This record gives sequence, C-alpha cells and structure tokens, in this order.
Amino acid sequence: MNGCGRLLLLPTPLGASAPSAVLPAEVLATARATRHFLAERAKSARAFLQTIDHPVPLRGLDIVEIGHWPDESRIDQWLQPASRGHDVAIVAEAGCPAVADPGAVIVARAHELGIPVRPLVGPSAILLALMASGLNGQRFRFAGYLPQDGGELAAAIVALERQSRGGETQLVIETPYRNEKLLAALLQHCALDTRITVAVGLTTPDEAILTRRVSEWRALPDRPPLAKRPAVFALLAATRPDRTIAPARAARHGRRPG
Amino acid sequence: MNGCGRLLLLPTPLGASAPSAVLPAEVLATARATRHFLAERAKSARAFLQTIDHPVPLRGLDIVEIGHWPDESRIDQWLQPASRGHDVAIVAEAGCPAVADPGAVIVARAHELGIPVRPLVGPSAILLALMASGLNGQRFRFAGYLPQDGGELAAAIVALERQSRGGETQLVIETPYRNEKLLAALLQHCALDTRITVAVGLTTPDEAILTRRVSEWRALPDRPPLAKRPAVFALLAATRPDRTIAPARAARHGRRPG
Repeated sequence: MNGCGRLLLLPTPLGASAPSAVLPAEVLATARATRHFLAERAKSARAFLQTIDHPVPLRGLDIVEIGHWPDESRIDQWLQPASRGHDVAIVAEAGCPAVADPGAVIVARAHELGIPVRPLVGPSAILLALMASGLNGQRFRFAGYLPQDGGELAAAIVALERQSRGGETQLVIETPYRNEKLLAALLQHCALDTRITVAVGLTTPDEAILTRRVSEWRALPDRPPLAKRPAVFALLAATRPDRTIAPARAARHGRRPG
Repeated sequence: MNGCGRLLLLPTPLGASAPSAVLPAEVLATARATRHFLAERAKSARAFLQTIDHPVPLRGLDIVEIGHWPDESRIDQWLQPASRGHDVAIVAEAGCPAVADPGAVIVARAHELGIPVRPLVGPSAILLALMASGLNGQRFRFAGYLPQDGGELAAAIVALERQSRGGETQLVIETPYRNEKLLAALLQHCALDTRITVAVGLTTPDEAILTRRVSEWRALPDRPPLAKRPAVFALLAATRPDRTIAPARAARHGRRPG
C-alpha cells in the first residue's frame, strides 16, 4: 500500500466525562476530520461521534464493527481506505485503543503494510491509576485479569506480590461485578505492610483513588463502593528502602521520553 | 490535614508540540486556575505555564523546585497549601508526573495525609508507544532503564525477551545519546522473529514509530534517526499463536476500566 492515509488510534472517555475533559482539542479536531472508523461496537462509536459533534451525519460515515476479537482475515480490507489516502481511526470502546482494548492485531498489520500509525492522547485508566497511586512509576507491570478460581487467584496474588518485592508496581483490572471479591482476596493474601491502590471511576464525577497498606485497608470504616464501577488495582510490597521508588539514575543525563 | 485542596498531577507536552495537541481543554483550565506548583525544575515549569497563558504573572505564582530526587523531609511543607484549601499541582518535566518522572513519593505522602489525589490526562510516551506498537497491550511491563555495561546489558535483554515469551510486552527507555547503542544491542541479542518497536519523538512533528522483526530491522536500509531524540523501545518474542495478543477473556463480561 502506498497511500498517505494513516492508522489513527483514537481514545474515548472512560465514562461520564465530557470529551473536552479528557481529549485534547487537536485530537477532537482530528476525529472530526476522519471519515473511516473501526470500532469494537459500532453503537458506542456512533454515540461518541455524536458527543464530539462530528460534522458529518452518522450515516455518511464509514463505521466498521470489528468486535471484541477482530477477524484477522478482514483486516486488510478494513485498512483499504488508507491505500486511497484516507485516515482510518480505531476508536476505543473506552480509554486507549490496543491497551486493555482490542486493536493491537490491526496496528500490527498496519506496520507490516507500511501504513503510518499515529497514537492520539487520551485517558488510560491504567496510567492514571499508576500516576495517582504513589507507588513506583519507574518500573511497573500491567498483568491484565487474574484467574477467577479461588485457589488460582490466591496463587496469582502471591506471585504478584513476590514480583513487586523488587520494587516493580503491579497493576491489574477486573470486571466490575467481581471488584469486591478481588479486593477481599488482595487483602487476604498480601502482607500487612504491602500498599494497595484502588482507583475507581477515574476521570468521572465518582472518581475515588485510595492507597493504603493492607493493615489500614482492613481497618478502614468505609471502603469506596466498587460493585458496578470500573476499577484499577495496584500493589507494591514494602521491602526496599524508599530510594527504590525515586527516579532511575539515567534520567538526569538528558531529555527523557516522558 | 483537613483542607479541601487536592494534589493535582499535571502532565506536560513531550517536546515541541502545542499544549492543545496533547492536553485536554479542561486540564489546561485546571492548570490556569492553580497557583501552587511543584516542579522538578522551576525553569521548565515557568516555560510551560507561559505556553498555556497562565493568567497570573509568573512572579505571582508559587513554584517550588523539588529536584530530581525530592527531599522527603520537605514534602509536608510542600503540601501545606492543600491544608488551607488550595490545590497543589505536581507539574511533569515532560509527560506524566510520577511515571518515569519524579513525584511518586509526594503522591504517597498525600495519601497518608488524606489529601485527595487527582491525576489529569496528558501524554505518556510509554503508553503512546505501547498503543502504536501493535504488540500485546493486554499485558505489558515497563522496565525503566537497562544497565549500561555491555555484558549486563546483554543479560538484561535476554531476560526481557525471555519474559516476553509468555506474551507480555516489554518496554524500556534510554537517554537519547545511548539510543543507537541500545537498538544495536537489542538487534544483536534478540531472536530473529522477535518484534521490536522503536517510537521516537512521540507527539512531535518528528514522530516516527516502527515495529519490525529483528530480521527485518537488520535489513532495513535506513533506520529512524535516534541520536538526540527521546525514544521508547518495546519488544515481544514470537512464540505464541496470535490469539494471545487478542483481548483477555474477562473484558467481554462488563464495563472495562479502559
């Protein structure tokens, strides 16, 4: 493919927040200038494009539903508009495309085809939770979803905590209706002085972010309500002196990627 | 502390990009309404506040230089304005505060003092590189800086590649003047079919993002210039079928944190 169209990665709000609260003006302008969209669910994409006042009526836009597990045999077809010089945007279901959201296989194919990939700035619950956690942001790991089975879950939590002893913050997510169960398991299986962050409803009016040691969590009179709200969990065991959570050595020697 | 001031985490552009390209309008408005700032380097913070047309003359603002390794004995004093009801913002040197940037110890102390922490949306080179890599965004790890010594660097790269065989994308950064050396080492020590992403100058006019297998990188006629530009590197070994880079199972069961 030799067109000059790009594959844009277009983030969307995490919940009930205004686009201008979480998306830069230029990102909104880029979205409004785009005609070809790939979305996990077309309905969500249409709702988003209405929220940002896309100047073209929805029926005039090309919105392809790629589903949660994109059919790889159709990716080349989805990327076709780029070969004719048109930008194609992957619209996230919530947050950033290709990060705890479908799309990576499409991005990978764009690289193979030589289509320029342009990531746009927007909200990521994982990144916002990490920033606000007070845990180590110099080294961290996002482990996705933990197992559901009680025994496997306990083992996974113990493994996460062990990995964090080297100073590497561990982040996980869960589907909202299992949030309470996950927090209970974390409080049951982690050491008393391990710090645990719960970040709920990020960027929405219900946002609540709490970092406490396990011993403090257990004594907390009221925990933030988690039942139906999207949450990110982070943990960091307390075995190293605080120096390990200070910035890495090399950062002072030049411009950083940020 | 019982004031209602918050600790804001205020991202800044990664390089020569307009604030409106990478910061939401509401984040800019929040920054303009803030009077108390904590910054690694006061000079960079002043330049940023001028770029966003802060309505208060710089000499009327409280800009505290916290340095690259914040002095923990001074943190309570820095957070004092919050007890009087004023927001205090940690301004990033570039990108997001407390992620590959100082500030986490201050955020941690805010949690201890019961000061609400509010992370604001902005550019993160690590997250943008991950989105645009086409590598697995369902599970990933940011390992910070690798060792400089040749033998240790080789061992660290081999360990990263081994860890990625489970499907977990590995991300690292380097100071710009060592970028070329790091890429050469990655191409030397990784398997031919391992995919490597180099993301340079993200969000700037010089942005270049390339994902190629090691064999392809070695044959590439011209690589993007890396010498003086901030870059993020990512790698993912190729041992699992493509299914492992599709979204995790639980995501389909409810709203996701994004």
